[in-house]
Amino acid sequence: MDIQATALKCKKAGIFMSALSSETKDKALENIIKELEKNVDSIIEANNADLEQAKNDNLELPLVKRLKFDREKNFETCNGIASLVSLEDPVGKILSATELDKGLALFKVSRPIGVIGVIFESRPDALVQIAALCLKSGNSVLLKGGKEAFATNKILASVIYKAGVAKGLPEGWLGLLETRSDVDQMLKLDKSVDLIIPRGSNEFVRYIMDNTVIPVLGHADGICHLYIDRLADSKMAIDLSIDSKCQYVAVCNAVETILVHESLAKKILPPLKRELEKKGVKIYGCEKTTSIVDVETATKKDWETEYLDLTVAIRVVPSLKEALAHINQYGSGHTDVIVTRDKKRAFYFMDHADTADAFWNCSTRFSDGFRFGLGAEVGISTNKIHARGPVGLEGLMIYQWRMIGNGHMVKDYAGKTAKAFTHKPLKKDFQFKINHAKATID
Amino acid sequence: MDIQATALKCKKAGIFMSALSSETKDKALENIIKELEKNVDSIIEANNADLEQAKNDNLELPLVKRLKFDREKNFETCNGIASLVSLEDPVGKILSATELDKGLALFKVSRPIGVIGVIFESRPDALVQIAALCLKSGNSVLLKGGKEAFATNKILASVIYKAGVAKGLPEGWLGLLETRSDVDQMLKLDKSVDLIIPRGSNEFVRYIMDNTVIPVLGHADGICHLYIDRLADSKMAIDLSIDSKCQYVAVCNAVETILVHESLAKKILPPLKRELEKKGVKIYGCEKTTSIVDVETATKKDWETEYLDLTVAIRVVPSLKEALAHINQYGSGHTDVIVTRDKKRAFYFMDHADTADAFWNCSTRFSDGFRFGLGAEVGISTNKIHARGPVGLEGLMIYQWRMIGNGHMVKDYAGKTAKAFTHKPLKKDFQFKINHAKATID
Repeated sequence: MDIQATALKCKKAGIFMSALSSETKDKALENIIKELEKNVDSIIEANNADLEQAKNDNLELPLVKRLKFDREKNFETCNGIASLVSLEDPVGKILSATELDKGLALFKVSRPIGVIGVIFESRPDALVQIAALCLKSGNSVLLKGGKEAFATNKILASVIYKAGVAKGLPEGWLGLLETRSDVDQMLKLDKSVDLIIPRGSNEFVRYIMDNTVIPVLGHADGICHLYIDRLADSKMAIDLSIDSKCQYVAVCNAVETILVHESLAKKILPPLKRELEKKGVKIYGCEKTTSIVDVETATKKDWETEYLDLTVAIRVVPSLKEALAHINQYGSGHTDVIVTRDKKRAFYFMDHADTADAFWNCSTRFSDGFRFGLGAEVGISTNKIHARGPVGLEGLMIYQWRMIGNGHMVKDYAGKTAKAFTHKPLKKDFQFKINHAKATID
Repeated sequence: MDIQATALKCKKAGIFMSALSSETKDKALENIIKELEKNVDSIIEANNADLEQAKNDNLELPLVKRLKFDREKNFETCNGIASLVSLEDPVGKILSATELDKGLALFKVSRPIGVIGVIFESRPDALVQIAALCLKSGNSVLLKGGKEAFATNKILASVIYKAGVAKGLPEGWLGLLETRSDVDQMLKLDKSVDLIIPRGSNEFVRYIMDNTVIPVLGHADGICHLYIDRLADSKMAIDLSIDSKCQYVAVCNAVETILVHESLAKKILPPLKRELEKKGVKIYGCEKTTSIVDVETATKKDWETEYLDLTVAIRVVPSLKEALAHINQYGSGHTDVIVTRDKKRAFYFMDHADTADAFWNCSTRFSDGFRFGLGAEVGISTNKIHARGPVGLEGLMIYQWRMIGNGHMVKDYAGKTAKAFTHKPLKKDFQFKINHAKATID
């Protein structure tokens, strides 16, 4: 089947996915766990073939590492799915309820988006994770993996797909695009795919964002800042700098640039340098920084760099306002922190930082769906619409307006003798949830 | 100033727009009303120049009609702004509040999107309306009007802009793109513009949606359906057909195709035809329809047509399921209605119709922000993310995550001695709102 036909089938399946009962979806998830465990040997065998090929192709070591899918990875992946089963069904929640007039009620009801297109590099566990998230949220999913994981993706998709269909999911609920052709083919499927979630390197994500009219949920860069205000507690500022930079360096929510208010610079830069260097951090500083401590000189390029490494840039700023100007110019709208004792300055910072996560006196590293308590993480978004920051299952949801009347016509609410609308809030306890499995649809 | 420079200025202004107090925004709106009233003669003079030019250019009559901005239009427009003043400020609402651990609190706070790009044809009142909506919601706005309204747009933008700045809005909060160059220039400003709202013909909106990577809020078509189920009340079905088709034909929420369950066809088609024809409606019917009543034959093209006129297509369908298949194939995901006495069938319809507004036993024409009680209407969206159906001010909003700690570090929540998160819901009564006007930001 070609890509377009697969996508169309996926779109049709999405309609039925959106109407499944919570029970059916949870049983499908449980069966997926069962089948993944049952087929683990064949999966590892396929993965070994991919790993072999990767060696022959001289794939870079980090890519090979991400490609590996062993017994432990399978166990972790299954645990991830199990945690979804216990989550509340995000579909069919009454978000608002309004009486427009006697006998005419309007409901805003949470609904799945439709078809989620997932484009990912190497990591085959991402396939399983995102497929499970889509299933739980009543979306169908179209997957396009990297060719280096071809065999692993193929068997994983097949096991998951069949396990789902066996428990009542519609044919076509999961589609795997297998051709070697460019990712560009999927980016053009704007009639079938409602949202794209890319998983991979910054360059990969940015390429996708720049080359499709389909909405993309995710982030390319994570250039996060920690601003040490003139009213900061110095010890706290240094502790938070270390945690934000060093707790785990290869992630999007690690800090890349530390901004220091100049009235505090002479006092804080020497101990800050000492503590960072103790952790093996390489420092690039602006001119004012280098006049106080002995570090390499930073250039404009440093403000624009996501090091993802034990490297940090430091800039001395004359004011809170200038710190914000720097963040809004060079940041990626991911996570930015102010360290200060002053509430008004903290709120000023939050109100003026154009960023998904504006934190006060805590580490950038808290920016994460699990730490936020979102239950499951779809990704971290630097978008300005739909979903921002760490995104849970609600990022895969939209809503539908449902109106229930009794023959109500608009002509009665127009003209000189127009009836007035009441627009009265109703209780949100209306129950739309119905198990359609046994419904007659003649 | 060129388009890029204007957009950049607008982006910077957006930061300060987002942090304005409710009072400042409302005072600016009131001053805009005052200045529009004061300058009404100059505005009408400019509009007359545009109307003259339109005549010379042999512009089509409907376009000329939409172009007109007279004293009455100014009055209506000012009334629209006045109704915004009394609305609650959508910025800074606490959407959720969670304790992550003792002293570590996470808030989800409503925030403006940033820069709204508005591209509109002829109607200059759209400029005023959307500028006011952006202002109220703390967004800055970049406008690109049609060249046929050049003089009117220019003076309206100037009056509004100055009236806003005089009451404390930041320089650059509203930008008018004046060059005659193609709308394409604006569609490329994805680094400055966060959301595009197009106002104009279907073709115009579709062109914009297909030619930008910036998110677009709106709808191209409004191909709405009314499905008369086998368990429908015949009189109600006919009444709703007439209201949905005839109450106002030139709008997106008027019905274009009526689907009739075949078990009811023989009974309902003759009176339905009679009543529609009484109202002057031209009918195109499928083969089964023409075998029962004498109407023109419909082709596939009719199912895909938004007539926006006293014309309707009728198709007999063998089942509720086939009605849904038709709607999901040919509909535009705008508004679709089922007429039935059966609740389960109504819910089946709502759960399987891939549409923004799924209605039961009421007219398609209710699909409207004012009728929904949204306070102000930004537009109607057939998007599958962010906002769907009639969109109020909340369509111009996103949120920001705000975390408040006291030196909290992630290292304490990792490893073998990891502290556990509490993830306890907090009351949403936290107060972030602060008037920054007098703040020291050194």
